[in-house]
Amino acid sequence: MAGKSSSNTAGKPIHCRAAIARKAGEPLVIEEVIVAPPKPHEVRIKITCTSLCHTDVTFWKLEHPPGIFPIIFGHEAVGIVESVGEGVHEVVEGDTVIPIFLPDCGECTDCLSDKSNICSKFPLRPSFGMQRDDTSRFTDINGETLNHFLFVSSFSEYTVVDIAHVTKINPTIPPNRACLLGCGISTGVGAAWKTAKVEVGSTVAIFGLGAIGLAVAEGARLCGAKRIIGVDVNQDKCEIGKKFGVTDFVNSRNIGDKTVSEIIMEMTDGGADYCFECVGLTSLVHEAYASCRKGWGKTVMVGIDHPGAMLTLSSFEILHSGKSLMGSFFGGLKPKSDIRILEKRYLDKELQLDEFVTHEVDFKDINKAFDLLLEGKSLRCVIWMNK
Amino acid sequence: MAGKSSSNTAGKPIHCRAAIARKAGEPLVIEEVIVAPPKPHEVRIKITCTSLCHTDVTFWKLEHPPGIFPIIFGHEAVGIVESVGEGVHEVVEGDTVIPIFLPDCGECTDCLSDKSNICSKFPLRPSFGMQRDDTSRFTDINGETLNHFLFVSSFSEYTVVDIAHVTKINPTIPPNRACLLGCGISTGVGAAWKTAKVEVGSTVAIFGLGAIGLAVAEGARLCGAKRIIGVDVNQDKCEIGKKFGVTDFVNSRNIGDKTVSEIIMEMTDGGADYCFECVGLTSLVHEAYASCRKGWGKTVMVGIDHPGAMLTLSSFEILHSGKSLMGSFFGGLKPKSDIRILEKRYLDKELQLDEFVTHEVDFKDINKAFDLLLEGKSLRCVIWMNK
Ligand SMILES: [Zn+2]
Ligand SMILES: [Zn+2]
Ligand SMILES: [Zn+2]
Ligand SMILES: [Zn+2]
Repeated sequence: MAGKSSSNTAGKPIHCRAAIARKAGEPLVIEEVIVAPPKPHEVRIKITCTSLCHTDVTFWKLEHPPGIFPIIFGHEAVGIVESVGEGVHEVVEGDTVIPIFLPDCGECTDCLSDKSNICSKFPLRPSFGMQRDDTSRFTDINGETLNHFLFVSSFSEYTVVDIAHVTKINPTIPPNRACLLGCGISTGVGAAWKTAKVEVGSTVAIFGLGAIGLAVAEGARLCGAKRIIGVDVNQDKCEIGKKFGVTDFVNSRNIGDKTVSEIIMEMTDGGADYCFECVGLTSLVHEAYASCRKGWGKTVMVGIDHPGAMLTLSSFEILHSGKSLMGSFFGGLKPKSDIRILEKRYLDKELQLDEFVTHEVDFKDINKAFDLLLEGKSLRCVIWMNK
Repeated sequence: MAGKSSSNTAGKPIHCRAAIARKAGEPLVIEEVIVAPPKPHEVRIKITCTSLCHTDVTFWKLEHPPGIFPIIFGHEAVGIVESVGEGVHEVVEGDTVIPIFLPDCGECTDCLSDKSNICSKFPLRPSFGMQRDDTSRFTDINGETLNHFLFVSSFSEYTVVDIAHVTKINPTIPPNRACLLGCGISTGVGAAWKTAKVEVGSTVAIFGLGAIGLAVAEGARLCGAKRIIGVDVNQDKCEIGKKFGVTDFVNSRNIGDKTVSEIIMEMTDGGADYCFECVGLTSLVHEAYASCRKGWGKTVMVGIDHPGAMLTLSSFEILHSGKSLMGSFFGGLKPKSDIRILEKRYLDKELQLDEFVTHEVDFKDINKAFDLLLEGKSLRCVIWMNK
């Protein structure tokens, strides 16, 4: 069904395969779905490949709201524009694009500012439909509506995405690298580059060496950091980290009576210039803050804890330490401009993406990607839609 | 006793007048004291004038530790070098100097860095003596040792200060303006200039229009802020604020059911670029944080709450808001370099200091300065040692 030329399909529903999550925690089922044509300001994309991110898995496990079923997950992907809706001028049929969960309307104060990546026209909110009307473009063959995920839903051969969520990219970048730029890797690289603005010669500490933490290391390396300390409970991350510029490893299960911050203070003679929390544990933010160099240290929150988590810091310490605290959402990156910069740096062989791809599977084996991530065996598993 | 030329007094103890606090909350008593000659790395200073800061009053009220008596308070001052101890080359007899509570050793990583003002050689710690040996240079005529305050103790005709706490200044600046640069006013101006780095055309909100909050306004005005919103419970601050660049006033007792942050969000169509908490209430830091523009807003803590105060923020909000949080200690200013810049900007008629001086008294009337500050009638009361 897939793979028809756009001249045949534009304006019509497309029948294709999608991996549907019908129940929390149960294997996805590949079924035939009907993908409606794009409405105004929307783009229908033929997905080339997609990769699995922890956020897909987090929502897949949720039995209760905000968990919702049936749904088509997937939000790290690359594809080709099949057709565009009315009013879309930014891309045309045949363009290679990355759909991105974060909107970039190109019109509001934030999207026009260099300093913000939080669009005001389309504020962050839970939605399981399209950005402008919250409706779905997916139905199964029994006519049941299928929910969208993060405005992307890339576990389908075709998907419909609002133009505010579409970034056109250079078609020469290999798709199994391009898809990584859609979420996790960009988030980590951006956290070092755009949020923290890591300086040449500086010292960085990273709490948690999953894909995002390793991407922070990669970003810090690109920025010229001299020393990159990785902290993880898994000793294997010591070797893995080296591929991404990690120069020193601390196994936080193997430090006796000391705290991680005490160890880092000793290693760095007073603290790291930048500390990144990439696990999503608010308690670790305290260790990161304590590991920062007084006078100028920056603590950057990258990991996502559960919504009610509260961070408590000593007012006295904030005032007297000269340290600052900030969050990094999508690495502080502006989807339509900064992703192009990362793409260029990859093509110029500066940014390393290859090592993040530890596994590749065919679409029919998508559940294997879930298993690999759940078992902690993969950094990124690329899923090819039609290889 | 005071006013001898240094050729007569160098190397010898000096008998002079000092205002001694003998009991918590009781009027200071002007008595004869003996000021020992400076030891190595120390400078004996003849104080010209001094002003009263809230921190003097806070410690004067404390019956229990860290309150300590008898003590010579005072830490905003200007004076003339009477003599120097061994190894002091930075200043000589006759130089005009400001003693500053924050050390600047000139040698450590922090003091050599542009980014920090928290000396590593002399870390922040409670002390009621000299910086290097914690002993006192003051005794009363009965031989009782008198405590130092914040390494300055300027409520004395002569005091001894470590060279790390001494900044040489231009002798042409009027002493009743120069003394203000020693603590509160510099802290406020620096918070806008050095910590927040307020940009031209930006919007600033200031919580608390005491001397420090007004100094933040003055600093923001100097940085080119377009709009400066002052928040206070005292309606009189509306008129006073105008003298320091405050363009909009919010009386936080007069906003009905709304919160201050709701009011500021409405006034600014989305939040202020910079918010400063100058009262020292951790609960107000939340309002300040909430009043900041998403995407790039900075919240700066300037006011000092009690030591155990804890700040609790939503982890989710930090991560998704794009806002940052930082403390400003002595306005992020480096005592030996930045105070010279403020002095020059005053002499160039850019920085306004005159309006901060609401009262001036003779040394014998020093308790009147306490009354005025306690009654909220003064911003700064200058105390002349020998007018
Ligand atoms: Zn926008
Ligand atoms: Zn993701
Ligand atoms: Zn120092
Ligand atoms: Zn003070």
